[in-house]
Amino acid sequence: MSDTTQTQMLREIAEQPAALERTLKSLVPLQSEIRLLARNRGRVLLIARGSSDNAAIYARYLAEVHAGVPASLAAPSVATLYRAELDLADTITIGVSQSGSTAEIVEALAWAKACGSATIAVTNVEGSPLAGAADIALITQAGQELAVPATKTYTTQVAALAVAVDALSPERGRLDREFGLVPEQAEAMLSTAEAMGEMVTTLSRTSEVLASGRGIAFGTTLEVALKLEETCLRPVRGLSYADLKHGPIAIVDHELVTLLVAGPEGPTLPGMIDLAATLRSKGSPVLGFGGNAEFRAACDLSVAGPELSEKLAPLVSIIPPQLMVEQLARSLGLDPDAPRGLRKVTQTD
Amino acid sequence: MSDTTQTQMLREIAEQPAALERTLKSLVPLQSEIRLLARNRGRVLLIARGSSDNAAIYARYLAEVHAGVPASLAAPSVATLYRAELDLADTITIGVSQSGSTAEIVEALAWAKACGSATIAVTNVEGSPLAGAADIALITQAGQELAVPATKTYTTQVAALAVAVDALSPERGRLDREFGLVPEQAEAMLSTAEAMGEMVTTLSRTSEVLASGRGIAFGTTLEVALKLEETCLRPVRGLSYADLKHGPIAIVDHELVTLLVAGPEGPTLPGMIDLAATLRSKGSPVLGFGGNAEFRAACDLSVAGPELSEKLAPLVSIIPPQLMVEQLARSLGLDPDAPRGLRKVTQTD
Repeated sequence: MSDTTQTQMLREIAEQPAALERTLKSLVPLQSEIRLLARNRGRVLLIARGSSDNAAIYARYLAEVHAGVPASLAAPSVATLYRAELDLADTITIGVSQSGSTAEIVEALAWAKACGSATIAVTNVEGSPLAGAADIALITQAGQELAVPATKTYTTQVAALAVAVDALSPERGRLDREFGLVPEQAEAMLSTAEAMGEMVTTLSRTSEVLASGRGIAFGTTLEVALKLEETCLRPVRGLSYADLKHGPIAIVDHELVTLLVAGPEGPTLPGMIDLAATLRSKGSPVLGFGGNAEFRAACDLSVAGPELSEKLAPLVSIIPPQLMVEQLARSLGLDPDAPRGLRKVTQTD
Repeated sequence: MSDTTQTQMLREIAEQPAALERTLKSLVPLQSEIRLLARNRGRVLLIARGSSDNAAIYARYLAEVHAGVPASLAAPSVATLYRAELDLADTITIGVSQSGSTAEIVEALAWAKACGSATIAVTNVEGSPLAGAADIALITQAGQELAVPATKTYTTQVAALAVAVDALSPERGRLDREFGLVPEQAEAMLSTAEAMGEMVTTLSRTSEVLASGRGIAFGTTLEVALKLEETCLRPVRGLSYADLKHGPIAIVDHELVTLLVAGPEGPTLPGMIDLAATLRSKGSPVLGFGGNAEFRAACDLSVAGPELSEKLAPLVSIIPPQLMVEQLARSLGLDPDAPRGLRKVTQTD
C-alpha cells in the first residue's frame, strides 16, 4: 500500500463525527423506554468481548459512578459452558456486539433472559440475532465497517452505552445536553492526526508497550492496547493504574514505552499525573492522551483530549490513538485494514 | 545466591501442604456463621489486588458455578476515589489482602459496609485493619511469608475463599469432604519440582510469554502470569481463552511461548485442548499445566495437576508453576526472594 492511498481504516476513523451524531440522535429518544424496562431492576450486567468489552468496561464505571447502579462484566463461560442457574430478576443485562452475530454473546444474552433479566442489545446490525434476542435493541448508526480494526463501531457503542446508562440515572437526562457537543469534539480530535509523528517514531522503535489508565478512562486505555496489538501486531498490555503499581511496575525500564490515557478532570487525575512522573523516572518514554495541562507536562509526548466532561470524554478520546495506530501500522509496512489472522466477525465458543 | 542454598521462596512453597491443612481446619467450622451472615443476601462482591485478585477471580467463578450466586469483582476506584453511593443491601462483600493492611482494600471494604453490605475479610494477619473492618474475619494460617512473591499466602487465600463460597451454596457442605484431600494433593504437587527442567529452559530462551486459561482455572492462569512477571521480570500477559481467540491470537508465532492452565475435567476442557493444538500449529511452544491426558498430549511440555475436582483443583494447581518460576528466576541469575522494586506490603491508592 502506498502512503498516498488512504486506508479504509483512516476513512472510517474520519466518519466518526457523523456516525456519532446519527447514533445519538437515533438513541437518545429511547431513554424513556429503557427507563421503563429498568424499573425495579437495580443491577447492570454487561456481556461483550474484544473491543465491545472495552466499551462495556466504560459502561460499568459509568453505571456505578454516574447512575449509582452496581454493575459487573459477565464471565460468558458461566453462561455458555457452565450454564449456571442464577437469579437475575433484579438485573438489566446489556449484550454488546458490533455484528450482533457472535454466537457466544447471543447465547449469553439469552441465558440472562432465562435467568429473569431484562435485556438490551447494543449492535450495529439491525435484525441481527443479538438485536432479536433483546427486549430493546440499541442500533448504532456507524454504517458498514470494512476495516478489521473496529473504530466507528467502537465509538458509537460507547455512545449507545452512555445513552443507556444515563437513562438509569436517578435524575433523568443529566448527560442529555452534553451529548450534543460530542460530534464537534469528535471532529476536533481528527485534527490531531498531524501531531502523531513523534509518537509513531517512538513506538516503531520498541516491541515492549504497556498501556495504563484508571476509572472512567480505563476502557479507553484497554481499547488503545487492543487496537495497537491487533493492528500493529505488537504485544501490548493494558493495566489499571493500581494493578500496575501493585507488581508489574517492577519490569518498567527504558525499553518499555508506556501509553497513559487520562480524563480531563476527576478524582483519578492526580494519580495519573504521579504515575507519569514515576514511569519517566524509571526511564520509560511516556506517551499521554487527554488529561489536563499538568498531566501532559508530566509526559514525554502528549495529545490533548476533547472538551467534554470526564463522563463523556470516552465517546471520542480514542480517536487520537486510532490515528496513531493507523499511522504506525503503515510505517511498519503493515496493512491496517486487514491485520494477519483476524476476521471481521469473531466466533468464540 | 548459590544453587545449593534453598531460597526462602522454595521453603515457603514447600510449606503449603501444612499451611492448607491448618487453614482448612481452622476455617471450615466457620461455615455456619458465614451462612448466617449471608442470609437474604444473594450477591457476592470481591475486593482485591495483585495475587489476591487472582484468588478473587477464582472465587467469582466458584460463586456463580458452584453456589449459584451472581458475583463480581469491585473496581476499587469506584469506592475510594469516586465514592459512588450504591445500594449493597443484598450483597456480601469479601475483601482479600495477605497483609490486611493495604489501605485501598480496607477503605473499599468499609465503603461496602457503609453501602449496606455484609463484609468478610480474608487475610493472613489476625488483628489487621482489614480483619477489624469486617463482620467475619477468615484468617489464613500460612504463617509469616518472607519472600516477596506470594505463594503459601495465595493458596491459603484460595482455600479460604472456597470455604466461604461453599458456605453460600444451597446444599451446605458440598465440597466439605473433598477439603480433606487437599493437603495430600498439595504434597503430590511438590514432587513435580524435578520435572521442570525443560519448561525452565524453554522459558529462559524467550522474552515473550502469554498465559491462557478459562473458567474456574482462569484465576490460576493469571496468577502464573503475575508470578512469572514479578519474580522473573518478564512481561507476561494473562488472557482468557476467548479473549485470546478474539484478537491477540494474531500475534502468536514461534517467538511466543504459551502457558496453558486447565482443570482436570469440566466444560472448558475441550476448548483448552483445541487451543493447545491451534497454538502449536502456529509454532508456539505450548507448556501445559493440569488438564487430562488428551490436553497434555496436545501440549509440547506438560505437568499433570492434582487429583481433585475442577472446583477445588485451584487450591493446589498453582504449585507446579510456582516451582517453575522459582527455578527460572535462579537460572536467570535473579533472587526469587526479592525481585527488583517490590515491597511486601503494597500500598495502592
